[in-house]
Amino acid sequence: MKHLDVKDVLTNKEYTGKEVTVCGWVRTARDSKNMAFFELNDGTSLKHIQVVIDKAVLNVDDEALKLGASVKVVGTAVEGRQELNEINAKEVVLLGASPADYPLQKKRHTLEFLRTMPHLRTRTNTFNAVLRVRSVMANSIHTYFQSHNYVYVNTPLITGSDCEGAGETFTVTTIGHSDKYKTSDEYYADDFFGRRATLSVSGQLEGEVAAMAMGKIYTFGPSFRAENSNTPRHVAEFWHVEPEVAFAELPDIIEIAEDMIKYIVRDVLEKCPEEIKFFDERFEKGLIDKLNNLINNDFAILDYTDAVKMLEESGKQFQYPVYWGADLQTEHERYITEEVYNKPVFITNYPKAIKSFYMKQNPDGKTVAATDLLVPGVGEIIGCSEREADYDKLMAAMKERNMKIEEYADYIDLRRFGSVPHSGFGLGFERIIMYVTGMTNIRDVILYPRTVGNIR
Amino acid sequence: MKHLDVKDVLTNKEYTGKEVTVCGWVRTARDSKNMAFFELNDGTSLKHIQVVIDKAVLNVDDEALKLGASVKVVGTAVEGRQELNEINAKEVVLLGASPADYPLQKKRHTLEFLRTMPHLRTRTNTFNAVLRVRSVMANSIHTYFQSHNYVYVNTPLITGSDCEGAGETFTVTTIGHSDKYKTSDEYYADDFFGRRATLSVSGQLEGEVAAMAMGKIYTFGPSFRAENSNTPRHVAEFWHVEPEVAFAELPDIIEIAEDMIKYIVRDVLEKCPEEIKFFDERFEKGLIDKLNNLINNDFAILDYTDAVKMLEESGKQFQYPVYWGADLQTEHERYITEEVYNKPVFITNYPKAIKSFYMKQNPDGKTVAATDLLVPGVGEIIGCSEREADYDKLMAAMKERNMKIEEYADYIDLRRFGSVPHSGFGLGFERIIMYVTGMTNIRDVILYPRTVGNIR
Repeated sequence: MKHLDVKDVLTNKEYTGKEVTVCGWVRTARDSKNMAFFELNDGTSLKHIQVVIDKAVLNVDDEALKLGASVKVVGTAVEGRQELNEINAKEVVLLGASPADYPLQKKRHTLEFLRTMPHLRTRTNTFNAVLRVRSVMANSIHTYFQSHNYVYVNTPLITGSDCEGAGETFTVTTIGHSDKYKTSDEYYADDFFGRRATLSVSGQLEGEVAAMAMGKIYTFGPSFRAENSNTPRHVAEFWHVEPEVAFAELPDIIEIAEDMIKYIVRDVLEKCPEEIKFFDERFEKGLIDKLNNLINNDFAILDYTDAVKMLEESGKQFQYPVYWGADLQTEHERYITEEVYNKPVFITNYPKAIKSFYMKQNPDGKTVAATDLLVPGVGEIIGCSEREADYDKLMAAMKERNMKIEEYADYIDLRRFGSVPHSGFGLGFERIIMYVTGMTNIRDVILYPRTVGNIR
Repeated sequence: MKHLDVKDVLTNKEYTGKEVTVCGWVRTARDSKNMAFFELNDGTSLKHIQVVIDKAVLNVDDEALKLGASVKVVGTAVEGRQELNEINAKEVVLLGASPADYPLQKKRHTLEFLRTMPHLRTRTNTFNAVLRVRSVMANSIHTYFQSHNYVYVNTPLITGSDCEGAGETFTVTTIGHSDKYKTSDEYYADDFFGRRATLSVSGQLEGEVAAMAMGKIYTFGPSFRAENSNTPRHVAEFWHVEPEVAFAELPDIIEIAEDMIKYIVRDVLEKCPEEIKFFDERFEKGLIDKLNNLINNDFAILDYTDAVKMLEESGKQFQYPVYWGADLQTEHERYITEEVYNKPVFITNYPKAIKSFYMKQNPDGKTVAATDLLVPGVGEIIGCSEREADYDKLMAAMKERNMKIEEYADYIDLRRFGSVPHSGFGLGFERIIMYVTGMTNIRDVILYPRTVGNIR
């Protein structure tokens, strides 16, 4: 079935005056006495291509003019009124009809309504734009790291360890429900892996293994959290970008994170101008300005201790109390990023008690060399730290937390053999898509979102 | 910690004569009366950089000359004997020592031995090369599809459906072992998703959903198979590339698959010449010729029916019988690809009884428009088919197999609303890495391989 992509015919002068074949779905249709018009799209473009039918010359099946029908069109590409090319049809072949009960009839549908039909909402302009931006951003991430000598590694998704020390994990089993086993030990001993296995919440520990050999690595794959929460920012399955960099200390990794974010945003502005314009018009007024501001200004860096002072002196009434040692809540983060800075902010050097065992302990004995990147509207999109490279300090931190040392033997070995300063971060891919598109519910930037009770 | 990548200093003339700082691990060391030499690598390169120490000028800690130690070196890049640049050291700082029990002492280790230490084998030349080739190939795949207007989609990994109709799947649960539930129904009703959830064996069904909107899509993510088999070619967790193309029939998708494979191989030959040479010398003599042959010749296309005839007339004694209707076994595939063609072969139009419900039924009533791509040494690397786009035929095939129609409502809808001819394939990423590197065990092309009983 030789044919051209709608995108190519729409945007390439070469085709003007030539006979072309395109395929696609009918997105709008108008029928008058002498002429019929329809807009066709094969998904390769946010804009549709107009097809013009001279009814004196060409008889077209009524079914081929219905919204949602799929057709093949042969015709001449001619200069269009709105776009570079439209098509004067010579032949229109109906490929698949669209019956009257096609749910996406021509009217505005709410995002809530569209969530009830994940298999069809992809055919709307909104999801066409979201999915393309998501794809382009994923590729930007690969291009950024590959062009800086990073090695892409795939850390295991099924794992016997639990990166966060505790955390809500899914169990992976080939047994499932069974009344055959008295104890957990018997059950898991008989299971596929011979022990309890879970879905990875982060590839960091194995990412460190790779970085201690390949120097600069990044992962880009799914992570899983069995969080029993129903918010617009949480899903049970999300995509995670986790670079890990040997010989990098906290200031180095902060520089890398900022550089990477700016690269992605610059790239998507360049490659998806129509999509970003669409989001600016429909979903977040001022989006383009916001993104241009981001790439043209330095991110702020704010010490946690100063952040607490800033919040205490704000005169604001917060729901959650602010004091040194407390974790920052969404309301605090929003105040700092949206009201004080109105741009991305790295908060650095958190109290060690509220952060993970693997973070490098600062000389003050109270804080760790960690940072979260907060952005207006979305909140935290990056969690980052220099890792504890000192064997004794790491062991002490693990023992303090009553962790099972023997389960981390590989990880600890990295501090025994040629240990080096190293740092890494985790970027929630969907979070940055939300930031770039202005979509406010994470369910609308994922093909099939997974949340508690929802697995359609 | 500002420093340069070893790769850049090694390969860039600009640095010759300049002062540079590099970091890395000691890979070999020699000490004589007046001079000391060591080779350093930070993982960015297969080749090490030589560091020269004039002992009259610089006193170096003995610990910094031990295999596996990590050091920072400041010095002058000077033209090297073997490589473009080596470094005359001005300063050598020990970052992390490598004690005497470091397991990777200087001798050849078998791949079997290295599998016992996945966290350290990454520091060998072999795994440095494998991981870099893997990374470059992953990026080639993205570049290929993105440059052809495909949209990268992330299909869900936790799923309620089972693409292959049956198949060995992992269950995903937040309950695990429990004696609280009498029946499976009660157990799963109480589980995180309110029903039984499994790990996806393929993103195809959701990939089709995306392709019926975006036209040309590809997935690139993990798939999971709870296969209780211990072979050099099977793992429970592997990475899967699954393009799905609207308006493509079987001959179109065959063309795409061949074009993509050649693109990847051409790209890796260009970007990793040293790594491929290394594999040619150490693991598969003639590898480079094999890969050049692949990119310079058409793949063979052989009808299943002709393949059966060819096997029957071969005069070979096969362990498994050959007859029309039988699935081809590894021995049959090897005969065809290795003895008859000695190049990749697409076997087309398999009997419908041995293939999946979603494959397009051919007019002969006996076969389906499916193809497997077989390559010498590795066997099947691609499973491919045109999908059944006809509603009635799809329903009939599902009923014949006693499938639960209601679980596939979304998928079936695609045939109700603007159905189009479309095709797709699945490429086992590790399989093609094996083909390109000459590694013969899939466990050696994955950071942490997952097989039955093995989850270190």
